[in-house]
Amino acid sequence: MNVTVRGQTRHHRTVTFDSRNNQVLLVEQRLLPHEFKIIPTRNFRETASAISDMVVRGAGAIGATAAFGLAQGARAFRGSDLKKFSHHLTVVYQALKDARPTAVDPVNAMNDVRRAMMFGETVGEKQSIALAAAEEFSNEDVHHCKQIGMHGAKLIRNGMRILTHCNAGWLAFVDVGAATAPIYAAQAAGKKFHVFCDETRPRSQGATLTAWELAQQGVSHQIIADNAAGHLMQRGEIDLVIVGSDRTLGRTGEVANKIGTYTKAVLAKRHNIPFYVAIPLSTIDWKLKRGCDIPIEDRHEHEVLGAWGILSSPTSGVQSPKSGRRAYVRVANPTSGARNPGFDVTPAELITGIITPAGIFKPRELWRQRRELGFAS
Amino acid sequence: MNVTVRGQTRHHRTVTFDSRNNQVLLVEQRLLPHEFKIIPTRNFRETASAISDMVVRGAGAIGATAAFGLAQGARAFRGSDLKKFSHHLTVVYQALKDARPTAVDPVNAMNDVRRAMMFGETVGEKQSIALAAAEEFSNEDVHHCKQIGMHGAKLIRNGMRILTHCNAGWLAFVDVGAATAPIYAAQAAGKKFHVFCDETRPRSQGATLTAWELAQQGVSHQIIADNAAGHLMQRGEIDLVIVGSDRTLGRTGEVANKIGTYTKAVLAKRHNIPFYVAIPLSTIDWKLKRGCDIPIEDRHEHEVLGAWGILSSPTSGVQSPKSGRRAYVRVANPTSGARNPGFDVTPAELITGIITPAGIFKPRELWRQRRELGFAS
Repeated sequence: MNVTVRGQTRHHRTVTFDSRNNQVLLVEQRLLPHEFKIIPTRNFRETASAISDMVVRGAGAIGATAAFGLAQGARAFRGSDLKKFSHHLTVVYQALKDARPTAVDPVNAMNDVRRAMMFGETVGEKQSIALAAAEEFSNEDVHHCKQIGMHGAKLIRNGMRILTHCNAGWLAFVDVGAATAPIYAAQAAGKKFHVFCDETRPRSQGATLTAWELAQQGVSHQIIADNAAGHLMQRGEIDLVIVGSDRTLGRTGEVANKIGTYTKAVLAKRHNIPFYVAIPLSTIDWKLKRGCDIPIEDRHEHEVLGAWGILSSPTSGVQSPKSGRRAYVRVANPTSGARNPGFDVTPAELITGIITPAGIFKPRELWRQRRELGFAS
Repeated sequence: MNVTVRGQTRHHRTVTFDSRNNQVLLVEQRLLPHEFKIIPTRNFRETASAISDMVVRGAGAIGATAAFGLAQGARAFRGSDLKKFSHHLTVVYQALKDARPTAVDPVNAMNDVRRAMMFGETVGEKQSIALAAAEEFSNEDVHHCKQIGMHGAKLIRNGMRILTHCNAGWLAFVDVGAATAPIYAAQAAGKKFHVFCDETRPRSQGATLTAWELAQQGVSHQIIADNAAGHLMQRGEIDLVIVGSDRTLGRTGEVANKIGTYTKAVLAKRHNIPFYVAIPLSTIDWKLKRGCDIPIEDRHEHEVLGAWGILSSPTSGVQSPKSGRRAYVRVANPTSGARNPGFDVTPAELITGIITPAGIFKPRELWRQRRELGFAS
């Protein structure tokens, strides 16, 4: 999406490839929202580190990064020995896979690339195909997000006030994003609306990443404390909720997403506010039978006990990036601990619809439509 | 309640009076949870400043501080001229009233003291009565909180996991607190239970003040992000919710309290978890007819856009007080604004009971019991 740096507006993707220098170019997400920087990785090991060190995060974004990383590793091979090349490729694959062992996206993306490479006969052909396949994976990711936007934008009418939670924006994909896709598409269609970004404690992705994205695109928005959404709904100030999802159960329509999503769904139901989940089809889990079986990671308590930010004066208003040093403050009582579940599960009955690249479905419709939606039996 | 400083455990009240030096002694709440300090105010103007500068906060605590401030001002008067004394007293009263113009507690407390002073005939008598009346007001506050504790403790059974929101603890009163009173009483009765403290963004009173209080009393507890309560309720890990209230409508049983309270009540209702509100009778508003008419203060956006804390390393674990410098970090995107409603209103249908010094009532029972509960027609 568009990013404005020092008055210059340019279009960026979170992940691209510089074929001349054989480098993966990544938006350094750890510096956001306070600094925008594109960094190159010079070899597949640096690309793997960028994934493991959270330079890049989000399902689509790490998938594309791994695909490009595999192509980068393949293209760095010198020689024409297919056996040595194959061995080398296994090393590259493993390094990129190990960078985020629990994520399924890098593996799926790299398997796509490897399948395509089978059609090459020489090392050179396989190298070319690898890059082309990685580019295709990346373009597909963008295409899917745009389709989500096309379907979802129909839900947004002029004057609406939309609530989002966490970040399922373009920073989590190659471009456009999932939960943000309907917003960007509606904006492109000239609609006027306002977005409330849940802060999304403890990691504050709503206040940092989503708010940054919306500000860069010029979308009217405000950040709210996670505590405030209920009050705003009660007073009739929220018309629509759109969130993303890390895993959606194809069998039940249950949605696992960032902690706090369930709460917003319960509140939306009480106030008869439509609650939508925007997802690429790759995040549908067709196997798991019950949402309560989704393991909920308990994350480190320091996330709850304090906050990361830029040292500054509370009342100085809008600040320039780099105006201060990045720091962690311990907010909580020093002798108290925390409980920090990272995700929660929202049942189908609270979800108005699932926005996918193939259209909008009732959560319980997914299973009936499974063949069309890519279910592999 | 008990506070342990450098291994020494002592009982403290938030507000006391040193009659020999004519000083009000206050827990300096702006330093908590990172430092515990009692500061004296040397004259009524310093006492007024302590109220306006938030050294002391919370309904009961600022009421008692104003009562003691009035006595302090009265006792500083030299001479026997009743007319001059009366004029002086008006100046003192006004200064303390102006310290927190929207709060009703300082005014009510000082009116109590003034009424009592009418029974004195000389300046000396009036001065003595002023101090005695302020002491009585303060002791009454403690007594009421203990009664709340006595009634509320019956709700707490061994093994329970209790959720609290914000701080209606002893720091907000003279001692014991309201929402915390049942907890402290149950602990004193030897019951074993666990408390989850909602962080309570944006000002984090749960993570700072309530967690500090519970740690000092040795009550088992953990801080959670405001986003996490729904998930814990869904997984059956919360058995009881107790919160405080700034204003409870006697006519409808609606409860105004810190932003986020309404959300927790909606969640509790969904999961059939009892939701109680603990209040002294002085916070019941017998006049207002509808909760939606309660003005909701929109507070400064910097509260949402960042956080206050002690500069530290995120993973260093338990830290000693004073281990770092107090600082504000801007968490949010620098070019985004925030919406920051400070309170919300919970309807009677979501409230299991109101715990008062006079017993536990259904919210809609308050009006029927109004004569017994101090309704002045």
